[in-house]
Amino acid sequence: MRIVVIGCGAAGWAAAAAARKTNREAKITVIEQGKHPVYERGGIPYVIQGEIPSFESLVNFSSEYFDFMKIEMLTETKATDIDPSEKWVKVSTRSGKERQIEYDALILATGSKPFIIPAPGYNLPEVYGVRTIDDGKRILDACRSAKAAVVIGARLVGLEMAVALNQRGLDVTVIELLPQILDAILDRELAEEVQKTLEGMGIRFVLEAGISEILGKDHVKAALAGSTKIDADMVVMAAGVRGRIELAQQIGAEFGTTRLIKVDERMETSVKEVYAAGDCIECVSAITMKPTASQLGTNAVRQGKVAGTNAAGGSAMRPPILGASVTKLLETEISSIGLTEAYARKNGIDCVSASAVVPMRPICYPDRFNARVKLSARKADGRIIGAQFISRKEAAPRIDTISVAMLKGVTADDLVLFDHAYSPPVADSTDPLAVVAEVLSKKFTGLSRA
Amino acid sequence: MRIVVIGCGAAGWAAAAAARKTNREAKITVIEQGKHPVYERGGIPYVIQGEIPSFESLVNFSSEYFDFMKIEMLTETKATDIDPSEKWVKVSTRSGKERQIEYDALILATGSKPFIIPAPGYNLPEVYGVRTIDDGKRILDACRSAKAAVVIGARLVGLEMAVALNQRGLDVTVIELLPQILDAILDRELAEEVQKTLEGMGIRFVLEAGISEILGKDHVKAALAGSTKIDADMVVMAAGVRGRIELAQQIGAEFGTTRLIKVDERMETSVKEVYAAGDCIECVSAITMKPTASQLGTNAVRQGKVAGTNAAGGSAMRPPILGASVTKLLETEISSIGLTEAYARKNGIDCVSASAVVPMRPICYPDRFNARVKLSARKADGRIIGAQFISRKEAAPRIDTISVAMLKGVTADDLVLFDHAYSPPVADSTDPLAVVAEVLSKKFTGLSRA
Repeated sequence: MRIVVIGCGAAGWAAAAAARKTNREAKITVIEQGKHPVYERGGIPYVIQGEIPSFESLVNFSSEYFDFMKIEMLTETKATDIDPSEKWVKVSTRSGKERQIEYDALILATGSKPFIIPAPGYNLPEVYGVRTIDDGKRILDACRSAKAAVVIGARLVGLEMAVALNQRGLDVTVIELLPQILDAILDRELAEEVQKTLEGMGIRFVLEAGISEILGKDHVKAALAGSTKIDADMVVMAAGVRGRIELAQQIGAEFGTTRLIKVDERMETSVKEVYAAGDCIECVSAITMKPTASQLGTNAVRQGKVAGTNAAGGSAMRPPILGASVTKLLETEISSIGLTEAYARKNGIDCVSASAVVPMRPICYPDRFNARVKLSARKADGRIIGAQFISRKEAAPRIDTISVAMLKGVTADDLVLFDHAYSPPVADSTDPLAVVAEVLSKKFTGLSRA
Repeated sequence: MRIVVIGCGAAGWAAAAAARKTNREAKITVIEQGKHPVYERGGIPYVIQGEIPSFESLVNFSSEYFDFMKIEMLTETKATDIDPSEKWVKVSTRSGKERQIEYDALILATGSKPFIIPAPGYNLPEVYGVRTIDDGKRILDACRSAKAAVVIGARLVGLEMAVALNQRGLDVTVIELLPQILDAILDRELAEEVQKTLEGMGIRFVLEAGISEILGKDHVKAALAGSTKIDADMVVMAAGVRGRIELAQQIGAEFGTTRLIKVDERMETSVKEVYAAGDCIECVSAITMKPTASQLGTNAVRQGKVAGTNAAGGSAMRPPILGASVTKLLETEISSIGLTEAYARKNGIDCVSASAVVPMRPICYPDRFNARVKLSARKADGRIIGAQFISRKEAAPRIDTISVAMLKGVTADDLVLFDHAYSPPVADSTDPLAVVAEVLSKKFTGLSRA
């Protein structure tokens, strides 16, 4: 059996490894157009910030790993053509040679690219996307001499970049089209808290303003956010990503409403024996059961595993998509899962929410700190449909707890008295999630009485 | 309505507060024989160690809190008699006066006391239990001049005390009757890892040995563990606790096989309108559905809430008991929930287990560390019945995730691809629990094929 994987980001790597684990005999080839196979993209802002020592450290695997796994890894190689009936992929290798590779199963893990807003001036040399190690190196080089930066987009990557550049001593302004930051993962009142924290560090925000122009003749001199002119030596575009779908289009694969590749429960596309995983595919929300774009590294890894397993003759089902995400902005960790209250309402889901500031350690503990926790539950059945968490620590594992809860349709009532671990140096005797669950549960009691 | 609570530890406090929240009009009286109402008992070893600044800081509430909650708080007051048919409690107050307090509902939250093994020499002045702030103060005083200590019992409190005294510069030896430390919460191979870490700090262990005698005429000079003589200036008894059940016995309440007070699903004892909660009651394991002693602070708080709510005319159900626990031994956090593999086998529960050392941060992150994770699942239905976790951080929230999973009957399969949050500074792209769940899941696949 012959398996070809196109793209070696998180999804492609996970697919190839799962295929190997499923089938020891298969010949597996991975085609990657970049210099490196899979690396921790999410670490790029932290290298620029100085929290991770080098870009090189982001590269997870040496070529020995792929040799050991008996995976043929073709870097700096571009897939140029696919024939899904004859089942071959044409590639152009590092040295410019063409080669045709036959497959029994093909996995498209072509990922995504940063969306570069085509505002006038977008092609000036100091306008950067944040996707590859090369992007990261160019930004780090630039910020050694630059004094001021504009970041376009106040989502996770935008804010991580804003903090990184701020820590490098630059004057940073973030431009966001929407009236709040982190719109996809936080409700407004929580987003405003984060914004204040970042403003306290000296980062400025211009909200409800798009980038209308990047000014400068040969070099970036300023950016126009609506009518606000912001002097800057560099611009970072962090306005989201777009799936790389050209190859899928070429073979006539079906696309969803999100303009991403449609896959079935086995991660197979509409084209037989062609699977897809990662940023290039359309997900199905485990909450709304509707198509959604959820371009996260954890989805890529989980989907890659399923695609690779099935491609290699095994059997696995599409992973549940709840949208768990987390970031660390200097000393503030923010995590989120599911739907925000605002998103739920906008999409016609009637929900009840509760939010509180709760202690993460008992009052006796010197290194105590609080978390801001928000939980939302569907009015119809009481099930938790979203959670938001802001704290100095533990934002990831706390949201993971809610993830397992959501997987199993847990209600606020279930969480009020759930059994949790307690000891003064590591946890308070009343769990922070249980505290907010109790407030939420009482709102439901109030509703049923009314 | 008149509610009386006997005992103001975690259970009594939680009961009184829940009663007040349920019933704004009730007259609520709490009777506590100690000087302080509820405080963080679990913090005592950490005060001795120096990680928490003072014993005073362990006291959670000032008298203003109880005034604000309109709870009459009688400290240094002992309940001496109860008439459950006439419904009154007789107390002896601080000044030695007798007083009779009528009740409509009574809550026994009498807690427990350390089990002092009656070996010869047990009543020497330098033999200490670890229960009250006064115990803590006496130990701290003693260890300022002592050079060597013997700790009896290698459970959570015993090990916390061993570390505390070690950090105070004492030569510490732990005696344990069983062949391993932390028997209730860790399987042997994990317990041995923890033991090695503690031995690396200079703590010595004498396993499979009971305390046969404490030597010394007027003062502790040594301890005999079996035939091993250990020179010591002080002995700490950390051999578990015994429920304080005298009052319950006196009113003829029913007891379970654990010799603790039996309560129904509403936390009511066999005596009408007498509720009980905390260390003095028998729990029902949510895994085996059998009676069990689970004398943990979190159980006390959760049970107290239910007892208080029901006593005050509300409606609440007994919380699920899974036995989540956690400790921090200097830089090592250990958490556990449910049954160990050994315990399950001993009790006739056929289970499958998997264990691995898994990264908690990606390899690029400088402050990376690993966790040792063990999961056990019931062979019959695949449900997770226990988890063990050793790590530098996050042991509490990680075990809480498993708690919610166990609450809802999650299997290893469910966890393999669960949606978790990822970002390089705070979590790896493959979840540590998912990694071990995958190993466990494959063992089940192997079983079903075999």
